[in-house]
Amino acid sequence: MIFLEKLIQLVEQGGSFLCVGLDPDVKIFPAGIPKNCDGIVEFNREIIAATKDFTIAYKPNFAFYERWGVAGWKALEQTRRMIPADKIAIADAKRGDIGNTSKMYAQAILQELDFDAITVNPWMGEDSVEPFLENEEKGVYFLTVTSNSGSQDFQKQQSGDKIMYERVIENVQLWNRKQNAGIVVGATQPEELRKIRDFAPELPILIPGLGAQGGDLEASVSAAFSCDGAPPLFNQSRGILYADSGKDFAEVAHQTAQKTRNAINKAKEQ
Amino acid sequence: MIFLEKLIQLVEQGGSFLCVGLDPDVKIFPAGIPKNCDGIVEFNREIIAATKDFTIAYKPNFAFYERWGVAGWKALEQTRRMIPADKIAIADAKRGDIGNTSKMYAQAILQELDFDAITVNPWMGEDSVEPFLENEEKGVYFLTVTSNSGSQDFQKQQSGDKIMYERVIENVQLWNRKQNAGIVVGATQPEELRKIRDFAPELPILIPGLGAQGGDLEASVSAAFSCDGAPPLFNQSRGILYADSGKDFAEVAHQTAQKTRNAINKAKEQ
Repeated sequence: MIFLEKLIQLVEQGGSFLCVGLDPDVKIFPAGIPKNCDGIVEFNREIIAATKDFTIAYKPNFAFYERWGVAGWKALEQTRRMIPADKIAIADAKRGDIGNTSKMYAQAILQELDFDAITVNPWMGEDSVEPFLENEEKGVYFLTVTSNSGSQDFQKQQSGDKIMYERVIENVQLWNRKQNAGIVVGATQPEELRKIRDFAPELPILIPGLGAQGGDLEASVSAAFSCDGAPPLFNQSRGILYADSGKDFAEVAHQTAQKTRNAINKAKEQ
Repeated sequence: MIFLEKLIQLVEQGGSFLCVGLDPDVKIFPAGIPKNCDGIVEFNREIIAATKDFTIAYKPNFAFYERWGVAGWKALEQTRRMIPADKIAIADAKRGDIGNTSKMYAQAILQELDFDAITVNPWMGEDSVEPFLENEEKGVYFLTVTSNSGSQDFQKQQSGDKIMYERVIENVQLWNRKQNAGIVVGATQPEELRKIRDFAPELPILIPGLGAQGGDLEASVSAAFSCDGAPPLFNQSRGILYADSGKDFAEVAHQTAQKTRNAINKAKEQ
């Protein structure tokens, strides 16, 4: 099934637009979880079980696993296998290289690890992104306007009569021959988000930065649903994973995920 | 020792500007080398032994290891340990993420794997690159004008009175507080290379794309030495690794590396 169709179907069935970022930071692990790769797997298992009734997607950020070398990659493989089949497993890998090399990354992440989607850095242009887009069943979210302050440095620079991120979107529209391309727009950027939805409603949007990064939920949701378009996904990581530092962390994550899903759905209706 | 000082010292001692890309592609391995991760380590060991008299640096591209998952990361760790101490070990990882996440990548690659330098994608801006620059002993090469055709899409777009890649360079100059920042400019871009050297002679340049990617050696070398500046490194991968597909591949790699080093040094003097 084409990625966009699968996304639409899962969102309809699940009644949610929430993605949970699986970013296991052992330094702030709840009491009782080992601060190592066994702990990472245990923590992710508990978080997935606690939140799966309210989510559409899970998004492990590769840095949190790569950090641990070989053991971290084992933990990433195990984490991938724990993500339920009726969720979208998004590899937050931010990869991108020349064509023949991107092909290796695509094979590693979309075939071997069998993620459903990946985040890709567009900076190196068309031939660097094509290998990720080859399989219509796999989604590719391109870094467009990110949630961090550094998004000012290049993404928001003027370029002729456009802003650079608008050039990215125009290119993504051209690259979207198989209806499997999307974009990343930070929740800290609601004004841009609204303009982008008007400009490219057909592109699914991944919206990170809710919570810890200061993104305003209501403003982002309102902007994301300002017109009919492909389903947005709102990602929350730290705000759910580390909502409680005690032994009840899973129960608190459960409640927080439920509240966040409900808040998104409520803001959507307003 | 500050990265730039170390680079200058090694280039002076070694009398070479050659970097060999350790991009093990089992599909085109020479006869007799197993097409798996054991073969990757064996192949790299032979290539390093055959070329070390003529090189300053080795640059494994992470995609060729990540391709193999856990076993690939083991091969990458082993490869890192095989790179001699008097060479610069460059992690061609092209990473970049929001600040707290880039910190994990920096820790994994510059601390745990102990690479001397890393390639970083600048698209997400200042806070995304800072963690890589923290340690003055570790070099950071930013993707500026890459060797592939996609460099047209964003890197070469006009932005006000500048080209986008010039904005990158201006930012890298600001970020270069510890004399450990550099830039990547493809060998397929000799005109840009000459302009960039004039504009930012203090930045070390990593120049990939010699050989298989069609970069013209003499034009690149002439451009790179058009003014006095920080030492450039010229990377060749496939042209040396796969110069011969038979059992003499190491001997042919030896000769090819020697020829390439000599050709660079000769073109420099012209």
